[in-house]
Amino acid sequence: MYAIPLGDEGGELRPLEPWQAEEFLAHMDRGREFIGARNGLPDVVTDLESSRAFLRLYAEKAAADTGRIHGIWFDGTLVGAVILRKLDAEDGTAEAGCWLEPAGAGKGLVTRAARLLIDWAIEVRGVHRVEWVVSSDNEPSIAVARRLGMSKDGVLRASYPYRGRRHDEEVWSVLAPEWRAAKSA
Amino acid sequence: MYAIPLGDEGGELRPLEPWQAEEFLAHMDRGREFIGARNGLPDVVTDLESSRAFLRLYAEKAAADTGRIHGIWFDGTLVGAVILRKLDAEDGTAEAGCWLEPAGAGKGLVTRAARLLIDWAIEVRGVHRVEWVVSSDNEPSIAVARRLGMSKDGVLRASYPYRGRRHDEEVWSVLAPEWRAAKSA
Amino acid sequence: MYAIPLGDEGGELRPLEPWQAEEFLAHMDRGREFIGARNGLPDVVTDLESSRAFLRLYAEKAAADTGRIHGIWFDGTLVGAVILRKLDAEDGTAEAGCWLEPAGAGKGLVTRAARLLIDWAIEVRGVHRVEWVVSSDNEPSIAVARRLGMSKDGVLRASYPYRGRRHDEEVWSVLAPEWRAAKSA
Amino acid sequence: MYAIPLGDEGGELRPLEPWQAEEFLAHMDRGREFIGARNGLPDVVTDLESSRAFLRLYAEKAAADTGRIHGIWFDGTLVGAVILRKLDAEDGTAEAGCWLEPAGAGKGLVTRAARLLIDWAIEVRGVHRVEWVVSSDNEPSIAVARRLGMSKDGVLRASYPYRGRRHDEEVWSVLAPEWRAAKSA
Amino acid sequence: MYAIPLGDEGGELRPLEPWQAEEFLAHMDRGREFIGARNGLPDVVTDLESSRAFLRLYAEKAAADTGRIHGIWFDGTLVGAVILRKLDAEDGTAEAGCWLEPAGAGKGLVTRAARLLIDWAIEVRGVHRVEWVVSSDNEPSIAVARRLGMSKDGVLRASYPYRGRRHDEEVWSVLAPEWRAAKSA
Amino acid sequence: MYAIPLGDEGGELRPLEPWQAEEFLAHMDRGREFIGARNGLPDVVTDLESSRAFLRLYAEKAAADTGRIHGIWFDGTLVGAVILRKLDAEDGTAEAGCWLEPAGAGKGLVTRAARLLIDWAIEVRGVHRVEWVVSSDNEPSIAVARRLGMSKDGVLRASYPYRGRRHDEEVWSVLAPEWRAAKSA
Repeated sequence: MYAIPLGDEGGELRPLEPWQAEEFLAHMDRGREFIGARNGLPDVVTDLESSRAFLRLYAEKAAADTGRIHGIWFDGTLVGAVILRKLDAEDGTAEAGCWLEPAGAGKGLVTRAARLLIDWAIEVRGVHRVEWVVSSDNEPSIAVARRLGMSKDGVLRASYPYRGRRHDEEVWSVLAPEWRAAKSA
Repeated sequence: MYAIPLGDEGGELRPLEPWQAEEFLAHMDRGREFIGARNGLPDVVTDLESSRAFLRLYAEKAAADTGRIHGIWFDGTLVGAVILRKLDAEDGTAEAGCWLEPAGAGKGLVTRAARLLIDWAIEVRGVHRVEWVVSSDNEPSIAVARRLGMSKDGVLRASYPYRGRRHDEEVWSVLAPEWRAAKSA
Repeated sequence: MYAIPLGDEGGELRPLEPWQAEEFLAHMDRGREFIGARNGLPDVVTDLESSRAFLRLYAEKAAADTGRIHGIWFDGTLVGAVILRKLDAEDGTAEAGCWLEPAGAGKGLVTRAARLLIDWAIEVRGVHRVEWVVSSDNEPSIAVARRLGMSKDGVLRASYPYRGRRHDEEVWSVLAPEWRAAKSA
Repeated sequence: MYAIPLGDEGGELRPLEPWQAEEFLAHMDRGREFIGARNGLPDVVTDLESSRAFLRLYAEKAAADTGRIHGIWFDGTLVGAVILRKLDAEDGTAEAGCWLEPAGAGKGLVTRAARLLIDWAIEVRGVHRVEWVVSSDNEPSIAVARRLGMSKDGVLRASYPYRGRRHDEEVWSVLAPEWRAAKSA
Repeated sequence: MYAIPLGDEGGELRPLEPWQAEEFLAHMDRGREFIGARNGLPDVVTDLESSRAFLRLYAEKAAADTGRIHGIWFDGTLVGAVILRKLDAEDGTAEAGCWLEPAGAGKGLVTRAARLLIDWAIEVRGVHRVEWVVSSDNEPSIAVARRLGMSKDGVLRASYPYRGRRHDEEVWSVLAPEWRAAKSA
Repeated sequence: MYAIPLGDEGGELRPLEPWQAEEFLAHMDRGREFIGARNGLPDVVTDLESSRAFLRLYAEKAAADTGRIHGIWFDGTLVGAVILRKLDAEDGTAEAGCWLEPAGAGKGLVTRAARLLIDWAIEVRGVHRVEWVVSSDNEPSIAVARRLGMSKDGVLRASYPYRGRRHDEEVWSVLAPEWRAAKSA
């Protein structure tokens, strides 16, 4: 039922839940190659059962207050998502992430969606540090981190084995005071 | 983040989740006597832990796709909720319910909220029959059932023991074709 | 080891437990078409594993005191069962049910068996209301409800999807005072 | 509902289930000192909750087909029990046990009850070996083993620590062919 | 990392853990016929998954302090194991066991390994009685029991069904005072 | 039973398991203030139950092959530990950690112990990257990272809330080729 516009061109942020497993699988199928270039998710979501399992995992994170997922729709089609892979309200830390299928790219959808999610984490839930962990060769995602006002904490060398090669991962983060300063700027 | 207006006077429907346990408990505390006159919920939600447990139960129902809860806010205060106590998408059946604290009463909030929820169940999830089970002496809730276009299926005699007395419960329902006919009328 | 005669013609009520899964499956196989005309059980019990799972479910209900099953034997053959699908001793409510394969029909076995089970629920366990939910076109089961002195609480329209069609279900019930009055009559 | 007479003087074998926790606790309370002289059970069943937990454990063993319990009633009072502490139908082995409160002793109740239970294990369930493990100084229980036609397999030295002292345990057993030979004798 | 020499010829006792499932399976494969002559384990450990499951079962026993396993290596090859199938530190009882593939036999490895394990159970963990249950026709294992200074408590007739025949099992045991006396002798 | 010397002065590495909960609690009690200056563990291990729970958590990690713990003893007293907080053999990553009570400090025990553990992770388990996460003001632990040949990947700003203040954490790591090069140097 719920939806928040992401810009003026037809983008929307909405809850993404287990009953939408079929729609989510179709999105994965469309974006399998593109998303899979940098992200292991398409290897995990391969059929209706695994699609439902993935969405259920996130619904259970929401129930336990340890993470959440929101879908990004464009012109009525699910084209991506922003997530809190981890959320620790007591420690005041969270790790955000995102992905898009090609049809959703280049429209600023992820940046707008991530901004809503991070703002919720910081302003509503009291999170102090939001992290963004990204493969060093994932230029688009690093560009999002920059647009979100994050700074780079370091490079975890050879931390991410993917498709037969070990990748470095960059850790970016934004702290609550920085987030608020950027908003009021 | 999400919110849907319920009329023009400041009512809103929003997700209601475990992290809002404190707010939910405050709502229960304000409405304890009023809600408890016809509904056992205030006997179950008595402190922060039981408040979180109740909301978590519904978050797990959402994860399993067997129920859900939405909060009703008025002028920024949580004043009630509409729920799908049960949802069986395969069988095409659901049972809806609601409650309000006094500050939310008399404004049509529950009728509007239940309309959104039932419409979602029928139109989005393909539910054929939505049920509304209510104590026979709960006039306001029966009035909502009537306003929702439901008809009375029967009276379950002495089915609900509450506060030392056995109450009859009325079963009201609306079927998908009736719902759609009423909308197009 | 236990058995209670059901009339003088060779009927008996006995415990029905997981170790009897083979015997229960043979009963289902014999009654599959007849029982399945009005009852989804034969679609659930299709092999030894599902037979054991069903009986285990009821053994676990007995362990949790939330239901129970008794088998009906005739001339040494398992021909049917009476069950408490639900039992809530604290609330004083229960829902009873039954089925028979053709070889057991027309002998009054189910009525006698249900009478024992309902009397136990009311007199031993203190249940106040025993419910009997039955498809509106299940004449034999409705006749049993009548013979048990139940009255009809209402009709749940289109509540039971079965084999491609939605059926109405009738709710019948008997309350403890009615039960006792009928016995002393 | 079920009951099997144990002799002519008012003894009965019946199912013993979690809902009878209050009755079971009263039995334990009456027999606490007498039973506790040789058996740790009274130290485990001390209030309503532990009484229900013990009966539930045995109901779950019945559900899993790994054990069972039957109560012994005398003149309407629960005075003891016979159990299969373990049952392994695949291996064809079982371990039986029993206890009585003083009001049930000296009437042959346990011997008759154990005979029914062992006969069921051997003839109905196909068990080949029924074991009886008993503290070496528990003369009455050893006498039951003898009356059941068991022979002594050995003495497990110092195997049972109880009330500050290590006791030897005797292992008695009867095999299916022996059981049948004794019946036909 | 850990290893304790078992004599001077290349034998070693080491932890045996789930990550070694492949090595354990290879050992089972080599010893399948020899070990399986008297022991059901090779029927349980038949592939990598069941090998890991078995080792994990023992790792969980260690976590719960209810048993443990140690591997016996000879010249760098895993050739057998000694186990505490059960450990009850509160009751002061344990049951030990062992097996070897042919390449490990005849070198005193099991006796030395069992001695270390039993000594640990008695001296470090305060166990009073260590039991050794063995098929009556398992001469090598009975010889180990004798070398460990155990005495025979009895014979459990027909207690162990294996490969279509029921075997007697002997129960051997050693008590803490006996163990210490033998050490100081 | 197992022990590996850590240098010549009486240090030893040994398994640390749930049955040692009392010994572990005594160690925590002695080191509570010193260890707690930089590490939340003493706030978690406060009595026998929590001590056993912590050790059991690590025993279950070992069973699941996702982590492990080893104790450091000096002159027969447990004075510290090295752990793999996380182990992902498939991804080839692990996170190591350590602590000492004052009596164990200044002797090189942790460096030697961590070297054994990391070498096992890399050479036996095939781990490619071992991480060491440490509060930026924990000079002694950073010194260990340096002595182990690790390099600093970055600083996670404000990531660790502890005792009312948010601390930066440094991430250090060593990769398998670096480890081997340092060994052969």
